[in-house]
Amino acid sequence: MAAIRTIAILGPGLLGGSLAWALHRLPTKPHVIVWARRKEAAQQVTERGLASGATTDLAEAVRAADEVILCTPFGAMVELVKAARPHLRPGVFLTDVASVKAPVDEAIAPVLAGHAHWIGSHPMAGGEKAGLDAARPDLFHGARVILTPTKATSPLALKWAEQFWSELGAACLKTTPQNHDWAVAQISHLPHLVAVLLALAPENEALLFAGPGFRDTTRVAGGPPSMWTEILLANRSAVLDALNTFEGALIAARIALQTGDEKRLQELLTAANDVRRLFTDAA
Amino acid sequence: MAAIRTIAILGPGLLGGSLAWALHRLPTKPHVIVWARRKEAAQQVTERGLASGATTDLAEAVRAADEVILCTPFGAMVELVKAARPHLRPGVFLTDVASVKAPVDEAIAPVLAGHAHWIGSHPMAGGEKAGLDAARPDLFHGARVILTPTKATSPLALKWAEQFWSELGAACLKTTPQNHDWAVAQISHLPHLVAVLLALAPENEALLFAGPGFRDTTRVAGGPPSMWTEILLANRSAVLDALNTFEGALIAARIALQTGDEKRLQELLTAANDVRRLFTDAA
Repeated sequence: MAAIRTIAILGPGLLGGSLAWALHRLPTKPHVIVWARRKEAAQQVTERGLASGATTDLAEAVRAADEVILCTPFGAMVELVKAARPHLRPGVFLTDVASVKAPVDEAIAPVLAGHAHWIGSHPMAGGEKAGLDAARPDLFHGARVILTPTKATSPLALKWAEQFWSELGAACLKTTPQNHDWAVAQISHLPHLVAVLLALAPENEALLFAGPGFRDTTRVAGGPPSMWTEILLANRSAVLDALNTFEGALIAARIALQTGDEKRLQELLTAANDVRRLFTDAA
Repeated sequence: MAAIRTIAILGPGLLGGSLAWALHRLPTKPHVIVWARRKEAAQQVTERGLASGATTDLAEAVRAADEVILCTPFGAMVELVKAARPHLRPGVFLTDVASVKAPVDEAIAPVLAGHAHWIGSHPMAGGEKAGLDAARPDLFHGARVILTPTKATSPLALKWAEQFWSELGAACLKTTPQNHDWAVAQISHLPHLVAVLLALAPENEALLFAGPGFRDTTRVAGGPPSMWTEILLANRSAVLDALNTFEGALIAARIALQTGDEKRLQELLTAANDVRRLFTDAA
């Protein structure tokens, strides 16, 4: 008799909740169990029918699992993995959904070495609203997931992760944890910090006139403050590098504006148009 | 016999084309005539059936018009108004759609004084794509239009402009041209410039990982470079003021990041959440 595929989701926030829900609805009907720290959160998962079961007992959650997905804030992940390790099945597959990869991999890989097939994942999905209430079963459909194998990653772990995310409709990219953090500092963490500052720049009277441009430019600044503070600090060296580059560009733009350098401004705006074309052409 | 309401749209770009189309479809069936500098553009308006007629003859376009809407780049508006003036009917209503109001008002109001009911308008609608091909008849539906009356504006002009935009489904706000320019520098022009620099910040290899956050934060940077260069330069004193405030905030954020000041970062991100709530609560 073939065993039923069992997946444990640790942490029922936006990502964990959406992941449980998406897996629970798969035609292959895996057994999905959600672990939550708080009893109320576990109850909510059960009441909303987002998984096969939910528990606050970590050992119970992972004992039968073939696959374990870490979906807590990443400050909590290492302790969780250490607590779960004695109860993990040999050869279990593990990944996470954190937005910063090198610190997570450096902390978790040694804990799991020899115990499990570990690989880091960063699904580029989410939204401003956090928590289980914002979960949706199609969150990963069409999303991109960055996988971060290292020399220590088993080929089996990589293959598993690719299949895992593909089955949910996501497309996988691969890079090292370090390169991931360098890249997302530029395309996600710096834009987040800048969006926060843009949201705070207008005086109240000016905010009355805000339109669609302001709304979209500052959208990400609606994200959960504690999660994003954690992300910015965890990746701060790469974020500071990206910020330096940005500050240099800002000074150059200010000078072009001050001196009325129409040609230079138009060059900048045209170059930005070219970058934007990557998106409009893909859409 | 009541005369048919006749409206002249000068300039068939995204805003002019959308405006002609929206007016042409009104149940009250006004006569809508579009003036274009280029013959091909006038032909395109006719072929697509966006107006009652189209011409490259300015005198012909405005001669019978009760209402004239200036929809060209605003660098061209003053000369256009001077050229049109001898052909305008007495008591005609005029407005424009430029994103910068004080320079436009200061240039146009004296030309029209005693000839026409003039008031400035800034419809906060548009999009990254410019030109007639991007026009849509519902562009102004649900949009906000900032009207900029001055001491010289006739009450009749203000009343007309409010009715004009309301009939297209837009909601009007009122302020002075100077206050408008001060406010939009903060909620539109600075965000535009910053979005351009954010789009240019990532190295090519990092761009491969760009996701929805980067896409939305840089969306406005897809706007037409020549139009936006004109806007930034026309409003550069207010944009530079907004930029100074933003640069100060950026330095404070950098220091918080460098020193690992979690409390300060979380304060900034929480304050930005509050601003964002203005939008999510309204939506």
